[in-house]
Parts: sequence; structure tokens; C-alpha cells
Amino acid sequence: MQIKKAMSTSINSNTIASLVFLSAGLLSANANAEEFFTIKDGELQRPTGYREWVYVGTPVTPNDMNNGKAAFPEHHNVYIDPKSWAHWKETGEFRDGTIIMKELVSVGSKAAVSGNGYFQGEFIGLEATIKSKKHNPNEPGNWSYYSFSTPDHDALTEVAKPFPAASCNACHQSAAADDFVFTQYYPVLRAGKGTGEEAAGGFTSTLK
Amino acid sequence: MQIKKAMSTSINSNTIASLVFLSAGLLSANANAEEFFTIKDGELQRPTGYREWVYVGTPVTPNDMNNGKAAFPEHHNVYIDPKSWAHWKETGEFRDGTIIMKELVSVGSKAAVSGNGYFQGEFIGLEATIKSKKHNPNEPGNWSYYSFSTPDHDALTEVAKPFPAASCNACHQSAAADDFVFTQYYPVLRAGKGTGEEAAGGFTSTLK
Repeated sequence: MQIKKAMSTSINSNTIASLVFLSAGLLSANANAEEFFTIKDGELQRPTGYREWVYVGTPVTPNDMNNGKAAFPEHHNVYIDPKSWAHWKETGEFRDGTIIMKELVSVGSKAAVSGNGYFQGEFIGLEATIKSKKHNPNEPGNWSYYSFSTPDHDALTEVAKPFPAASCNACHQSAAADDFVFTQYYPVLRAGKGTGEEAAGGFTSTLK
Repeated sequence: MQIKKAMSTSINSNTIASLVFLSAGLLSANANAEEFFTIKDGELQRPTGYREWVYVGTPVTPNDMNNGKAAFPEHHNVYIDPKSWAHWKETGEFRDGTIIMKELVSVGSKAAVSGNGYFQGEFIGLEATIKSKKHNPNEPGNWSYYSFSTPDHDALTEVAKPFPAASCNACHQSAAADDFVFTQYYPVLRAGKGTGEEAAGGFTSTLK
């Protein structure tokens, strides 16, 4: 009651305006976060929270399908940050400031009650790609590529320097379907390209 | 200015209290949504927006690894609703009201610049499982199972009746690692069981 009384004496339209502004700010704070990554002294700080971003697809290229010498002998769970996903749904383009994470997961099992196949095992690494005019003014498509995986894949580094452009971008430039991203293998991105709300799944009876 | 003046004359502490309450309500509306599904006349309405929930893992059990007759000849992208994910992170348990979605994706390609493997093609179906004492009082673990896939996998139904318990739960009861859920194949759930913030990825240098 003491507080209520104090408030009632000092209240005015500016206070209301401030509260409304504050509320709007709180509501949209996450949506308005410009970027979901931090680059400091040329190094990308290891991103956090990406398992709560939007998942787009998982390729698996196991050793036993590549003569025991797969270049990427794991499942790759791929995520895009939520603001870039919102932009993709709206426009069908990767915004400046997009970050895509690739979490590496070992082949854990090849047989289950559901049949023979490839089942996900343990986390063994983490990679990222970023589209940024500011940080990558001279890279093709403004994309840069990073890995936080240690050589023996038993830990993650705190920061990562970008790979030399050619080591990643040669494949991405020649083979990726959409702006250096392999959307042909990511059904969530492919179906969601510029489709608005429907991109999030289940809104129509057609399969898209 | 007209509006501001009108506001300043009628403002009082109750108005402020209402605005603050409204703001708090808006901020927590999503977090407080009790369930992410609707069951009407015993049928589950097709859920929407699940591609923006939390992804937990993808098994693939293709025909060519199962004598051409796989029981589930696709990739299965599996998601959990955000409130049940929050509960899982906090407690390591599936809350009453959990919904887990399984989006079926065809094998789209078996070779890419990254090597031979299994790459995701097109969406071909949608399934769900729900843990609910209210709706499934007599089912093992209170789980029920649904499919929105049409027989030829070229569309989705609007609603789904639950499968007879035995048709799904026999395998889930005997082989699933944690409360009828195959967490052994879902690294995000396994790593995130009761681990709080760390469950979302990237917070520590250890791989979990």
C-alpha cells in the first residue's frame, strides 16, 4: 500500500510511456539481437545455446561407406540462429549476420529395434559458418568457416580462427545450392525458403 | 499530445499495476502454455510450429540396409516441445504434457562432395507421441502414439487417432532407454538430462 500510494502521487504520462517502451523492449529484446556471435581479435568466441536454435538437417557420411577414410565420418546436426531463420522465412535469403552451427555426432550404433541404420552416438565436435560483410568483406559471399573441434575430437576450444577461404569455400562455392549453403540437404531450409509461418511445419496438409 | 493529456488525467496506481501485470503476462505467455497439443473427441489435432521446437536427434534406417524392406525407411527428425525441454533440462524427466514430434524425411541422395552417405530429401510424414495422465490414464507410462502420414506418404491428415498401445509401446517399453523414449539415439536429450543451461550446447569445453 505504501508503494501504491507513492506511485499514485508521482505518476504521469511520461512514466506510462517509459513503462510501455520498457515492456516493448523486453518483449522484443531477443528478436532484435543483431548477431548471435562475437568475433574478438579475429577469433570467433564459441557460441552457446545453439541446440535451442532452429534445426535444418543432418547428413551422415560414415567411414564404412567411404573405404574407412571418410572426410567427415559423423552425423552433422545443423542449426541456424533464430533471427536469421526469421529472415529466411520472410525473404528466402541469408541475412548479413547469419550464423549456422554444425554439431558433430559420432555414429553410435548401426542396429536397433527399428532396423539397421545409422544412429547418433556422442558429440565429437563443433563447427560454424558466418556471413558478415563487416568481418569477411573479401570472402566469397562474405562467408567464413570455423572449427572448435580439437584434433582428437575429445574437447572444444574456447575460440576459433577462420579457415583459409579456399579450404572450405571451394566445395561450398561449386556445389552448395543456395548462397554457399548446402540447402539441397537441409529440408527445413528448402521447404521454409520465403514461405513465412508455414516454414515452421504442420500448417498445411501438403508435405512442405 | 491529445492522447498523452488524456492519459495523464486518468492515470492511477491501478493502471500501472495492470500494465505491469499485462507486461509480465506477455513476457511469460509462451513459457506458461501448459501443453503444445490439442486433443478433441479423442483425436490429436495436427500440431504446428514444431520445426521451431528443440531438436533432439535423427536416426536413419534406409531400405538398402534392411533387405529393401525397412520398417521405417527414412530419416526421422525428432523434436520436443520447448516447455517439456525446459523441464527435462531442469529435472531430467519428461513432464506430464510432453509432446515429441517425429518428422519423416526421405533419403534424398547417397553421394555428395563430402562423401558417400545418407542425405535428407523431402518431407514424407509426421508422427507424434504424448505423455498425458489425463488423456492416457491406462497406457504404459501414460504415452500415446499418433501418425499424420497418409498411406502413400504424399500428404498429412488434419487429425490422428492414437495407435493401439501394443503396436508402438511393445518396442518402446522393452528397448527405449528412458521412460519409453529412445534417448540412447538422441544425444541432445542424453547430454541435456538434468544439466540445466549447459544442455543448450557450447557452455563448456567438454563434449556434452
